[in-house]
Amino acid sequence: MDKRPIGVFDSGIGGLTVLREIMEQLPYENVIYFGDTARIPYGSKSEQTVKKFAYQCASFLKSMDVKTIVIACNTASAFAIDYLQERFDIPVIGVIEPGARGAVETTKNGKIGVIGTSGTVGSGAYQAAIMEKNHEAEVIGIPCPLFVPIVEEGWEYSTVAELTAQQYLIELKEHGVDSLVLGCTHYPILRYTIGKVLGEGVHLVNPAFETAKELKEILTAKGMLKEDFTKPKYEYFVSDAPEKFRRLGGNFLKKDIETLSEIAIDSIAVDE
Amino acid sequence: MDKRPIGVFDSGIGGLTVLREIMEQLPYENVIYFGDTARIPYGSKSEQTVKKFAYQCASFLKSMDVKTIVIACNTASAFAIDYLQERFDIPVIGVIEPGARGAVETTKNGKIGVIGTSGTVGSGAYQAAIMEKNHEAEVIGIPCPLFVPIVEEGWEYSTVAELTAQQYLIELKEHGVDSLVLGCTHYPILRYTIGKVLGEGVHLVNPAFETAKELKEILTAKGMLKEDFTKPKYEYFVSDAPEKFRRLGGNFLKKDIETLSEIAIDSIAVDE
Repeated sequence: MDKRPIGVFDSGIGGLTVLREIMEQLPYENVIYFGDTARIPYGSKSEQTVKKFAYQCASFLKSMDVKTIVIACNTASAFAIDYLQERFDIPVIGVIEPGARGAVETTKNGKIGVIGTSGTVGSGAYQAAIMEKNHEAEVIGIPCPLFVPIVEEGWEYSTVAELTAQQYLIELKEHGVDSLVLGCTHYPILRYTIGKVLGEGVHLVNPAFETAKELKEILTAKGMLKEDFTKPKYEYFVSDAPEKFRRLGGNFLKKDIETLSEIAIDSIAVDE
Repeated sequence: MDKRPIGVFDSGIGGLTVLREIMEQLPYENVIYFGDTARIPYGSKSEQTVKKFAYQCASFLKSMDVKTIVIACNTASAFAIDYLQERFDIPVIGVIEPGARGAVETTKNGKIGVIGTSGTVGSGAYQAAIMEKNHEAEVIGIPCPLFVPIVEEGWEYSTVAELTAQQYLIELKEHGVDSLVLGCTHYPILRYTIGKVLGEGVHLVNPAFETAKELKEILTAKGMLKEDFTKPKYEYFVSDAPEKFRRLGGNFLKKDIETLSEIAIDSIAVDE
């Protein structure tokens, strides 16, 4: 039994969809969440910069004595998971591997779509993780940069959202994919509109759900679950605008954000 | 005569629309441009964080021996112009004052619209600058967060752009504004679609144009123009992804980006 908290980080608010799944599937675990709101988004930035930012986020969590680190951000998982696993002596889990596993388990025709930020799709990380599990899979990745601001405007059911989804997803439809990875933390919120555009035959994979499932398996296997059935503590940290995070975060988490502080993430030294 | 370069900074690529106007109106001036691509965008971040970032950008330009600093970013102008003017001993010019002047000079009915990021509109900086010049003006500010990603997707003439513009601008139309400040560096690229939605009776004010005009007036008044009629030098610096900046920058600048380097902006100490 290990009562230390689980550490979760993201480029901002989107990772709360991962935290929400962790709260559901691991209801007794203490969690420390860090959102890098001063430098959000990561999805349009370079591998080198995302690695540096991710290292600083993980270092902060490690300094809070977490027992494991969950990279809730798809872009940071794509670019930095190996980098962080080499540098930290606790388990580091990303969303890509679990998401890829979910896609391979649900496809019937082997045609899998991946949507995400330019960084995530451009990195080829989902494609590689899927091909490793199913050599014959055909994977099509499409970056969808407008989806995040549409969700942040609360326009997920609008005509703008539907036309944008049609524009982005037409190629996936033409290729006949039957499983689609929602490879960005905001996208599950667009699930209804994406499903409407693609039709019922396409299974939508939510890496947030798959990641919480994998986290539970790992902590169970290592005997690191909290398992004392006491009420968990949730602590939140951001690098900018805590009040905005508190206000908007509720929509992602479906729960109030209470203990919240601001920290200076860029003052953490990076060990290259 | 002062041959030192003009320093221009922005949160990323959008400020190149300001640089383009400077190149047109001050064709002999050397310019150093810095785009903070590692921390873009500024428009959704807090005043405190934007001030800190702007200070680091200005410090970098000062270290390059510029004769004046142009804040090409509307959000940074809104939050940080006084802060920078107090801390640097060279002229610091933002885009808000010139943009406000352009609006006041063109309105006939005194009803002025301002569109920009959440930061720019929320700061009330344009509203205050306009009211100072015309106490009876009626100013309506609308944040338009989707416009930047639409421009960055190259969708400026799409149905998505038009529906989004209708959604954002309907209130301005109902109020009968006759002058609209395009208060974000990306928005002039949406000029056609915005004009189509608002109709011909609304004058669109481009703060980039107004800022270059003001810069020329200031340098002329202070005897600081280069005026030797030799070919100018343009040097570019970014904090992330130089190749992406080079590739996308051409669309904003209508000119190739040649001398380009990457710097670590977050290592510059901030004098609070």
